[in-house]
Amino acid sequence: MDLQGSFHVYDTTLRDGAQQEGLNLSVADKLTIARQLDGLGVGYIEGGWPGANPKDTEFFRRAAQELDLRHARLAAFGATRRAGVAAADDPLIAALRDSGASVVTLVAKSHERHVELALRTTLEENLAMVRDTITHLRDSGQTVFLDAEHFFDGYRSNRAYALEVLRTAAEAGAEVVALCDTNGGMLPDWVSDVVHDVIETTGARVGIHCHNDTGCAVANTLAAVDAGATHVQGTINGYGERTGNADLVSVVANLELKLDRQVLPAGLLSEATRIAHAVAEVTNVPPASRQPYVGTSAFAHKAGLHASAIKVDPNLYQHMDPIGVGNDMRLLVSDMAGRASIELKGRELGFDLSGDRELVTRVTDRVKELEQRGYTFEAADASFELLLVEEVEGRRPSYFDIESWRVITETSPAAEAVSEATVKLRAEGVRYVVTGEGNGPVNALDAALRTAIGQAFPEVAKFELIDYKVRILDQGHGTDAITRVLIETTDGESSWVTVGVGHNVIEASWGALVDGLTFGLRRHQR
Amino acid sequence: MDLQGSFHVYDTTLRDGAQQEGLNLSVADKLTIARQLDGLGVGYIEGGWPGANPKDTEFFRRAAQELDLRHARLAAFGATRRAGVAAADDPLIAALRDSGASVVTLVAKSHERHVELALRTTLEENLAMVRDTITHLRDSGQTVFLDAEHFFDGYRSNRAYALEVLRTAAEAGAEVVALCDTNGGMLPDWVSDVVHDVIETTGARVGIHCHNDTGCAVANTLAAVDAGATHVQGTINGYGERTGNADLVSVVANLELKLDRQVLPAGLLSEATRIAHAVAEVTNVPPASRQPYVGTSAFAHKAGLHASAIKVDPNLYQHMDPIGVGNDMRLLVSDMAGRASIELKGRELGFDLSGDRELVTRVTDRVKELEQRGYTFEAADASFELLLVEEVEGRRPSYFDIESWRVITETSPAAEAVSEATVKLRAEGVRYVVTGEGNGPVNALDAALRTAIGQAFPEVAKFELIDYKVRILDQGHGTDAITRVLIETTDGESSWVTVGVGHNVIEASWGALVDGLTFGLRRHQR
Repeated sequence: MDLQGSFHVYDTTLRDGAQQEGLNLSVADKLTIARQLDGLGVGYIEGGWPGANPKDTEFFRRAAQELDLRHARLAAFGATRRAGVAAADDPLIAALRDSGASVVTLVAKSHERHVELALRTTLEENLAMVRDTITHLRDSGQTVFLDAEHFFDGYRSNRAYALEVLRTAAEAGAEVVALCDTNGGMLPDWVSDVVHDVIETTGARVGIHCHNDTGCAVANTLAAVDAGATHVQGTINGYGERTGNADLVSVVANLELKLDRQVLPAGLLSEATRIAHAVAEVTNVPPASRQPYVGTSAFAHKAGLHASAIKVDPNLYQHMDPIGVGNDMRLLVSDMAGRASIELKGRELGFDLSGDRELVTRVTDRVKELEQRGYTFEAADASFELLLVEEVEGRRPSYFDIESWRVITETSPAAEAVSEATVKLRAEGVRYVVTGEGNGPVNALDAALRTAIGQAFPEVAKFELIDYKVRILDQGHGTDAITRVLIETTDGESSWVTVGVGHNVIEASWGALVDGLTFGLRRHQR
Repeated sequence: MDLQGSFHVYDTTLRDGAQQEGLNLSVADKLTIARQLDGLGVGYIEGGWPGANPKDTEFFRRAAQELDLRHARLAAFGATRRAGVAAADDPLIAALRDSGASVVTLVAKSHERHVELALRTTLEENLAMVRDTITHLRDSGQTVFLDAEHFFDGYRSNRAYALEVLRTAAEAGAEVVALCDTNGGMLPDWVSDVVHDVIETTGARVGIHCHNDTGCAVANTLAAVDAGATHVQGTINGYGERTGNADLVSVVANLELKLDRQVLPAGLLSEATRIAHAVAEVTNVPPASRQPYVGTSAFAHKAGLHASAIKVDPNLYQHMDPIGVGNDMRLLVSDMAGRASIELKGRELGFDLSGDRELVTRVTDRVKELEQRGYTFEAADASFELLLVEEVEGRRPSYFDIESWRVITETSPAAEAVSEATVKLRAEGVRYVVTGEGNGPVNALDAALRTAIGQAFPEVAKFELIDYKVRILDQGHGTDAITRVLIETTDGESSWVTVGVGHNVIEASWGALVDGLTFGLRRHQR
């Protein structure tokens, strides 16, 4: 399938999604999310606004070196040239041109009042800005999409001018004109009418960009596609300013599973649940359990009257087979989907479990029980592998015995806080009592632990803690909350993620640290 | 306006909404929510299933005595009589009849496969069950609505039979036949087609009941209304099984504000934000900040470039005036913030900065400088307000002087980790040395700090830490990372968010804790 051709699935999580309140992405976060989006098979990933934002400039620089995308093309986002300046002389246009992205998505005003009030220029000059900028970028070899900002409101205010902006863009060589419901106030029938009119009047290839302010972002997007749009914009998990953007997973699932239009490479939609949750780990926004298709509750049934009927024919009680999006019906999870995915995951890690039904059941049950308590093995492959080894070999890999640990953080006036940890343990028959310092309690514990164990196992010197994430589960009860910690450890060649859970954030971190060291030692001993 | 007449707004939060995973309502909770729903002006409140569930029987008993509804009528929910039993002899039908509710909503099967598999009876007997039950309840003086379960799937499977169920109900005297998308798989155009057909074929008054499995519950409901449905069912905050029911507030707001159909008593929609949040307090489900119309982020703007245009005409940047649903436009202060957005934000917080250019510059510069160091004021309004007061009044509000603090977390073999904090400070001329314990280091510090300050300022007893978020900035360097902590504190009436930043997570948390207490004290002192 020609992914960048007949139908565009265009993700703007890294740009418009990042406008969400409280969502802040580092360059490393953006690179990680881009890899996940590519794994979902989207056709385009909008990476940000190079030139306007140093972080985004850096993202495109690193993306060119580090990202090896199999499905998606990167798009740089930016505005039309400034009023009264040649496109070639506008440094922001130069940044788009030099971003390394083969696609540029240009935002342009299409609402007369916004031209006057926000751009403070004339309607004529705005058209020239659209024309010149597209021509300039096209001449430099880039594909150009136009985002017509506030298009629907602009169309209501001055239809002729709004259409003129699109026509100008198409004539200058924009491949797509995306109609943006920037303020999010549209309803499906209105979107449908406007898209029909735009296609009929301008003949341009139309895209759609919706926000969820009326609770209709997904339906509005589908209405546009039904009316002829062949380019849909959205974000993973519906991230975005105010009420969010159209949730790209819901849009794509509806198109593929409800409307029989294949818009992703075959088979990739079944990665959606995993990817939606993995992205949520990076953004640190707790996933919505009621999210359509990929939410943990999306296929959960309170067993009741109908349990036996569900067993006879589950499809009477679900609108689709959840496997299509990689989710599970929860009522049946223990007999079916759970086991299968444990087996698959085992194979991925080099354990053939297919011959041992009882073992698979045991592992499945433990995973369920631990996830009930707040663990997640989605991201923490290394902790899962340790659990698997424990069940396969009958005992958990262990290279040291902890006696006790303690960590103190304190300040005095006008001084920075310091943390100091003391760890007592035995390794290779020797007892170690070691104190370590750090910028925080976890760093201090990590330092003490690695110093102690490093005396018995010198390879530990290469290990380094490179990422640390904390998630408070069970919000609403500050003091009784359960804390989940994910820690990424590297040995300089590869890295692995472990998980710890507890009422006490330090205890949860300790569990993840111990798993991280154990996993690394096991890998090096083999 | 005749609320129970021309158009029905029918709330099922207390019955179908309560099917949500993790949502459990006591009888007292249900009575409180019913009062709130009445305050919103809905026409009908479905209270539960008397007879099938002791809690619901109790609810109807107490509702008859305690509820004094001004707008709504109570509806009892129940199933058609059992197969092979006269309606008058079925105890569950008797419970509906004797519930005291003037309206009964009867759920009936309209999908042939469900009749066979779940009811295990014949298609004929199912029709008789519908006919007899409605006749019996009508004869006892009750209004009857029919909920046709799995209607859309049933219609696809056997259109003639599904329609026959509706016709039978209407002929027996059901005032409304509500078409239920029980599995939630529909899209707007499909709903529209079916509703048109039902009205044309049966002439019945049609209602609509949607679930959000495709992310289209609101749009599906609107499509049904556009096709002629005059009864809409939904729940507050979209509570419900799986992905939830249609969010009644979004449905009503779209009908009133977008489609000019008044469906609530005049003026009551502007209570929606308050009521949606009040109900969330009762259900203890954290409100979704991105919820359309009533979410705390629904009208929040990262100002940046357009703040000056927002000042001239806010309606260019919002799809409606948030006052219509009792919400507010909020400007988020972020590092893209210019002077204009600082000025607007100041006004929001009650500070007129427009006359003092130099002050605005100073605040803008400090925000930029602090955000550079990792702070964020977007979510942390309270910390921003403290900064603003500091610049306006020349000194930061301060009610206590910290001398030092220390926190210890330790374990011994087979014991849970414990945290213990000691804080030394002066308040109102007295020196306090206080130790606190907690589930984690921050809880322990919080306990010690509040105990110490509470001796000088008793109002602190009401304060509680309700949310705690940690974010590691600058990933890739485990030990040098900067940590940002956001803390939400409540005094039982409102809540506020503060931010702290540091290399040491404990120190960052400490900063946010101190800001949280300072902000609360300032509010209570004024």
